[in-house]
Amino acid sequence: MPKKTSTRKNRSSMREFPLDRAFTLFEPGPVVLVVTSNGGKANVMTASWTTLLGFTPMIGIVAGPWNHSYRALMDTGECVLSIPTVDMMEAVVDIGNCSGDSVDKFGRFHLTPLKPEKVAVPLIGECLANVECVVRECPTSDGLHLFILEGVKAWSNPDRMEKRTFHAKGDGTFIIDGETVNLRHKMTKWGGCI
Amino acid sequence: MPKKTSTRKNRSSMREFPLDRAFTLFEPGPVVLVVTSNGGKANVMTASWTTLLGFTPMIGIVAGPWNHSYRALMDTGECVLSIPTVDMMEAVVDIGNCSGDSVDKFGRFHLTPLKPEKVAVPLIGECLANVECVVRECPTSDGLHLFILEGVKAWSNPDRMEKRTFHAKGDGTFIIDGETVNLRHKMTKWGGCI
Repeated sequence: MPKKTSTRKNRSSMREFPLDRAFTLFEPGPVVLVVTSNGGKANVMTASWTTLLGFTPMIGIVAGPWNHSYRALMDTGECVLSIPTVDMMEAVVDIGNCSGDSVDKFGRFHLTPLKPEKVAVPLIGECLANVECVVRECPTSDGLHLFILEGVKAWSNPDRMEKRTFHAKGDGTFIIDGETVNLRHKMTKWGGCI
Repeated sequence: MPKKTSTRKNRSSMREFPLDRAFTLFEPGPVVLVVTSNGGKANVMTASWTTLLGFTPMIGIVAGPWNHSYRALMDTGECVLSIPTVDMMEAVVDIGNCSGDSVDKFGRFHLTPLKPEKVAVPLIGECLANVECVVRECPTSDGLHLFILEGVKAWSNPDRMEKRTFHAKGDGTFIIDGETVNLRHKMTKWGGCI
């Protein structure tokens, strides 16, 4: 079993990110890391089946009993959603191809656990952003395995040079963010949201 | 009110796409178009709050009473999810900024309605892919407004030169697909799925 994860108190790389803008981290559909901590042992899962469900932000993520993190989400009711960037892509894929029941992923993948503020789950120092979340609804018996999370505190690293995220295609290939296009002038109906 | 939408029988641009691979169209989290048809009048909605929920494929999409398409999804229990590409980006944003209660979107945006096979909702001829879907679960009273859809027939246009999709950031900016990286050799745990 992995040993207990100690967190560094120094969050110097992370700055508070406005919680009411944290939905913009998830809406593009990037691969995310789901950090949990059960019995003081932190674990990380790679996830790409996620959606926004509300602006506060509310986020749905799929996790089932086949994920070691499932038990931690059910038992502790909290997690951190971390946004990795393209320079972390190979490690993120490897994180998704081993299990926390036998691997100390923070150790193996040289992730820096930073102290959170609202939950007892570490942030990942290397990521572009981290959102501390509480579980609002666990999966029901309908077989969908959808956890409903609400972000309660958000952080980002404004000094990070690499900001490009990446998207799983589901076939072992990944799409890196390309050009960003600004079409705000066309958002006539939803101007209040942007 | 928009007039009834006639569909063209000629699906020559679209080829059958393996239904058990259709999840790969949605997993990267692109902006999608949700086509509905109520009383023979087709409508289109732009959506980016979506997630995969299963490989068959099962797809969750958020739509609420503030969307004209909500009533059609509730009444008819079916839709088509269409995948637009970057050459359609401005039209897709405009589609999301007007309402089907007053606009015939197929007419205004010069979309070609193609005949479906399993549902009574047209495909969009201009899109990269179309997935005919049935509604498996309507939103419950919990306020999440999540429709659970199951794809029943999938189509794609293999001759389309432009295949890059795009992702909403939620702030009126959009990220275009960049480079694709093949990491299949690392998918040791999930090889059966890819």
